[in-house]
Amino acid sequence: MEQTMGYFRDNIEPGYQPNQLDVIKLNTNENPYPPSPAVLKAITEIKAEQLRRYPDPMGNIFREEARKINGVEPGWIMCCNGGDELLKMAWTAFCDRRRPVAYPVPTYSLYPVLSNIQNCRAIEVPFDEEFNLPARLARVRSALTVVCNPNAPSGTIIAAEELAELAAEVKGALLIDEAYVDFAEGNCVELVKQFENVIILRSLSKGYSLAGLRFGYAIGRPEMIEGLLKVKDSYNADAIAIAAATAAIKDQDYFKETTAKVKAERKRLMEQLRGLGFEMPESSSNFILVEHKTRRAKDIYDTLVQRNIYVRYWDLAGIDNKLRISVGTPQQDDILLSALKEIISG
Amino acid sequence: MEQTMGYFRDNIEPGYQPNQLDVIKLNTNENPYPPSPAVLKAITEIKAEQLRRYPDPMGNIFREEARKINGVEPGWIMCCNGGDELLKMAWTAFCDRRRPVAYPVPTYSLYPVLSNIQNCRAIEVPFDEEFNLPARLARVRSALTVVCNPNAPSGTIIAAEELAELAAEVKGALLIDEAYVDFAEGNCVELVKQFENVIILRSLSKGYSLAGLRFGYAIGRPEMIEGLLKVKDSYNADAIAIAAATAAIKDQDYFKETTAKVKAERKRLMEQLRGLGFEMPESSSNFILVEHKTRRAKDIYDTLVQRNIYVRYWDLAGIDNKLRISVGTPQQDDILLSALKEIISG
Repeated sequence: MEQTMGYFRDNIEPGYQPNQLDVIKLNTNENPYPPSPAVLKAITEIKAEQLRRYPDPMGNIFREEARKINGVEPGWIMCCNGGDELLKMAWTAFCDRRRPVAYPVPTYSLYPVLSNIQNCRAIEVPFDEEFNLPARLARVRSALTVVCNPNAPSGTIIAAEELAELAAEVKGALLIDEAYVDFAEGNCVELVKQFENVIILRSLSKGYSLAGLRFGYAIGRPEMIEGLLKVKDSYNADAIAIAAATAAIKDQDYFKETTAKVKAERKRLMEQLRGLGFEMPESSSNFILVEHKTRRAKDIYDTLVQRNIYVRYWDLAGIDNKLRISVGTPQQDDILLSALKEIISG
Repeated sequence: MEQTMGYFRDNIEPGYQPNQLDVIKLNTNENPYPPSPAVLKAITEIKAEQLRRYPDPMGNIFREEARKINGVEPGWIMCCNGGDELLKMAWTAFCDRRRPVAYPVPTYSLYPVLSNIQNCRAIEVPFDEEFNLPARLARVRSALTVVCNPNAPSGTIIAAEELAELAAEVKGALLIDEAYVDFAEGNCVELVKQFENVIILRSLSKGYSLAGLRFGYAIGRPEMIEGLLKVKDSYNADAIAIAAATAAIKDQDYFKETTAKVKAERKRLMEQLRGLGFEMPESSSNFILVEHKTRRAKDIYDTLVQRNIYVRYWDLAGIDNKLRISVGTPQQDDILLSALKEIISG
C-alpha cells in the first residue's frame, strides 16, 4: 500500500458515465417530453417539516399507487434511488465469488461494472443476430440471471411466455430489467405472481420523464422484497423524490399520452431512417439501434458531433458499427434526419 | 435453493431501521429547527427540464460551494445520497473477505451491518469508559479504519491531533465520520491535506436540518475521490437534492444561528438532566447519552413511550442501561424534563 490507489481493492473498475448537455441530445434515452405538471405541483408543496425529518424508509405513499397500477399488494413493491440502485442491490444480495451472475449480451453496460464491484463472475451469453433469448442462458448455473427487456442497446423485446420458461428453468433469481417497458406493448408483471424467483425492475426515468429525480422500484413476492430490503440503505429514497414519483404515477392519463407520442414518433423515425439506408431491429423502447448499409457508424457519429447532435456510439465488439438513437420530439428528429441525409449523400 | 430465502447470500442480515413519527420525537437526532428558507426557495425554482434530463453526475454546483467552506478544491469533494451511501461505498471499495474493517465500539449501528453485507471481518475495538481513542485501533491490521467523530451514540469527540496520529499509524484508509461535527468545536478537514489515506464524511441531515433530503459528501485528496468514484452509482444524487443542498450550504448565517441554538440548548438540557440524577459524558453532538444513578434505562424508556415521548434505547451490551436523547427545542425538552421529573420522583 505504497501509493494511494493501493488502498483500493483490485477489482474496482471505473463505473462513471459522463453526461453531455448539448443542443440535440439523443444519446441517453431521456424522454423528450417534460414530466406531468402534477410532479412540479407536488414538489412546490413540499413542507420544511418533510425535509427536517427522515423520510418514510419504505415510501409507502408511492407503494400504494404503484401496487394499484401493477395489480399487486403494497408489500410487493420496494422503492429505489433509480433503477441502478436496485441492480446494485440484486448483485449484492445474490452474487459473490462463488455465485455468478448471467445475462445475454450486448446489454446494459452497468451489468459488468456491478459484477466487477461485487467481485463475482459474469457469464455473458451472446444474443443471436435477431436478439432472441439465448437457449444457453437457462442452462448456465448462476445465482442471478438478468434480462434487460426491452433490451438496451438493441431496443428488442422478448415475449413474457419465453421469460416464464426461463424463470421456471433457472436455479437462482431472475431479474427482468423493465426500465424501458413503458414504450413496449405489455410487460412481465404477471410473472412475479407465478414465480417466487422473479424480480421486476421499473424506472421513472424514461416513461415518466424523471431521469433527474432518480426513482425506480422493484416488484416481487413479499419474501423476495424482504430479502432485498436487507441490503437497502435505510433511507434510500428522499422525501421529495417519493412525493414527486407518487404524483407522476398517479397521472396515468399524462403518462399514456406522452408514451403514445414517443411510440408514434419512433415509428416515423424508423421509417425515415430506413429510407436513408439504415437497418435496425424492431424497437419496443424509446431508442433505435441502427446500422447503415454502406457508411461506417463511427464516421456518422463524428460528423453528427461536429453539428452538436449527440447519439450513442460504443467501440465494442458486436456493436461497433451501430449507433443508438434516442427518440426525440419530431422537431429534434427532423434536425437529425436532415443532418443524416446530408452526411449519407455527401 | 428450495425456499425463496435460499436465493440470498448467507451473510445478508437485516439493516432496516424503523422511523417513528410521534409527538415528542427525540430518538433519531434530527435537527429541531427547519432548514434554511433558501432551501425551500431552491426547490420551488426547480424546472421541468431539470427533472426530464439526467442530473449532473458529479453535482458540480454543490462541490463548488462545499469546497469554499472547507478550503479545498472541487476535486476534493464527492456528493452522496446521504452519508450512509458514502459508508457503503467505502466498505465496498476497501473491504472484502481478506481485507477487514476496524472501528471503536460502541458506535454507529450501521458499521456492523455493512460489514455483514460486504462479507468482511469487522475488528471491533472497545472504547474505555471515557470514550477515549483505543490505542489498539492503530495496531490491528485493517484495510479501512472508521472513527465516528463526534461518536454516536456517546456524543463524545476525539481531538484532531489524536486522529492525525492514527492516520499516520494505520496501514489502510481512515474514514472520519463527521455526520455530527456541525455541533462540535472544530473538525478534522485539515487531516485530508496532511494524509493521503484520510476521507472525511459530512452529512446535511443534522446541522442543515435536511434528513428528509438524503445528502452527504466526502472530502478527500483527488486520488482518494477518484478511487471512490469507481463504486459510485453514475447518478447517485438527484437534481432537486443537488439544488437544495447547494442552497443550504450557501446560507452559512442560518446554519451558524441554528447550530448555535442547538448547542446552547444542549448545555441547558445536560444541566437539567444532571439535576435529575443522570450522568453523561460531555457531548459535542446534537444528542446526549445518559445513565441514571438509580433508575433502569429500559424502565424510563418504556414510561416515556407511554407518554408519546421517544428517545433511543438499545438492548446491547455496554449501553443497555443508557438512553440517547436528541436535543430538541427548549419547548420539547421541557416536556421531556417534566416527564422525567415525574418518573424519577414517582
